[in-house]
Amino acid sequence: MKSTPSCLPCYLKQALSAIKEITEDRNSRYEILKKVSRILPELTMDKTPAFNSTLILQEVSKITGIKDPFLKKKEYYNQLSLAMYPRLKDMVKNSEDHLETATKIAVAGNVIDLGILGEVNLEKSLKEIFTTEFRLNHIKHLKNDLKRLEKVLYLGDNAGEILFDRILVEEFLKMDKKVIFAVKEAPVLNDATLKDAAEVELDTITKVISTGSDKIGTDLESCSEEFLDIFYNSDIIISKGQGNFETLNEENLNIYFILKAKCDEVANELGVNMGDIVIVNNKYLN
Amino acid sequence: MKSTPSCLPCYLKQALSAIKEITEDRNSRYEILKKVSRILPELTMDKTPAFNSTLILQEVSKITGIKDPFLKKKEYYNQLSLAMYPRLKDMVKNSEDHLETATKIAVAGNVIDLGILGEVNLEKSLKEIFTTEFRLNHIKHLKNDLKRLEKVLYLGDNAGEILFDRILVEEFLKMDKKVIFAVKEAPVLNDATLKDAAEVELDTITKVISTGSDKIGTDLESCSEEFLDIFYNSDIIISKGQGNFETLNEENLNIYFILKAKCDEVANELGVNMGDIVIVNNKYLN
Repeated sequence: MKSTPSCLPCYLKQALSAIKEITEDRNSRYEILKKVSRILPELTMDKTPAFNSTLILQEVSKITGIKDPFLKKKEYYNQLSLAMYPRLKDMVKNSEDHLETATKIAVAGNVIDLGILGEVNLEKSLKEIFTTEFRLNHIKHLKNDLKRLEKVLYLGDNAGEILFDRILVEEFLKMDKKVIFAVKEAPVLNDATLKDAAEVELDTITKVISTGSDKIGTDLESCSEEFLDIFYNSDIIISKGQGNFETLNEENLNIYFILKAKCDEVANELGVNMGDIVIVNNKYLN
Repeated sequence: MKSTPSCLPCYLKQALSAIKEITEDRNSRYEILKKVSRILPELTMDKTPAFNSTLILQEVSKITGIKDPFLKKKEYYNQLSLAMYPRLKDMVKNSEDHLETATKIAVAGNVIDLGILGEVNLEKSLKEIFTTEFRLNHIKHLKNDLKRLEKVLYLGDNAGEILFDRILVEEFLKMDKKVIFAVKEAPVLNDATLKDAAEVELDTITKVISTGSDKIGTDLESCSEEFLDIFYNSDIIISKGQGNFETLNEENLNIYFILKAKCDEVANELGVNMGDIVIVNNKYLN
């Protein structure tokens, strides 16, 4: 999807979320953010919001010299999520529909999005998700696909959140699927990297690779050939979160987008309301 | 109050709200907003958010040549509010505590804030306000003041909203108070001007003056001498909305701030949560 005018204020909000991790001083925060705002006129609307967000976060790193502002927060959410693992497994075990429950758990983890949401309440998210229905629900199509197809590529989103994804990955593995989990090559926002995958022990249960890119979402132009080879040869792609949706929703592949709509622009693109949760495959729309 | 780093994204959001009134074209909106963003580095944190918002909205007008982007919306909300007048009067009449009910109605009208909130649901606001308690409630102090003091200056906020203020003004008039209602000298955002006061027939029940300023809030440095004379010689000042709070909360006068906290920064300054409603006089805090 393309950017919209409403994305511009949001880019600054995301920059601020990174700057807040770098300094406690309000004056410094203000001055850094003002410097960052100088690149706003360079951002074009024909790029995805994820692409522009990456540029703005790179600008924060350039100005401050801090390459990975969210390092500590990512470690924190990995550990917090890991401690919830036994409970999440019980939730699946005690549920009627294991796959749907695991999918909902994966969505619950999608609140660990420090750029847009800032504050995170995992417990609240987990509680709410079970009283919330998917606004768009293509899980039946996913189930059918899983009966006849084998190779699953899972595109992860944020650190911490990937422990919640692990719950869903384990359901795929139980069905004897070949699952490859993809994370970012290098830190950007609080997106998961290989280090985060190791911290939530995702690499002990399935193959984890990097997209070869350090851009938010799955920006195919910047991905490695190795990744693209896997990407185009997968039977089912699970795309987690807004960034991956923004960069892939116009691709003509078998992609299931699983996410919570956290802004009006993504919600509009999906035809849902902000706050809605979806598991949606473009080819089954209309 | 001073600005905070979080205000910067919000300035852009306010600029966008004005730009949306000027053009339907997404590309034009984006290009205008990018031009506006060039003045962000000039804004300083020692000014109030209201002062900086004014600069950004003036920049929109400078770039587009449109002096009053919200003209139609203001007329719309004046007419919509005016049509609700009989119902609002009945609400007061049928309530146990007329003054408190009128104050709540005034707060309900405070959702007509097109810069920050964008979408407005007056009916919903009116319904919710009666199941919501004031988070800070100095209405007892106001009642005591009204028993012994006479000259009330009411600082209005937005067009449309001033019809809701009129309900409260009429309660003061019933108590034989001398009420002067102040609006902006010239259009800025959707703030009320003399024209709006006439449209909701506020000028038929009490004296309406202009602050002499076209800045958001009550920016004393830019107000007229005539206004300042009234301001400093009033017994009770009713200050409506965030803009007036931002510009006056450090003044040492008998000011009752009536507002709904629409952003974390104002909520923090008040020590309440975003979304809370208050009627608060600084001198009774701790």
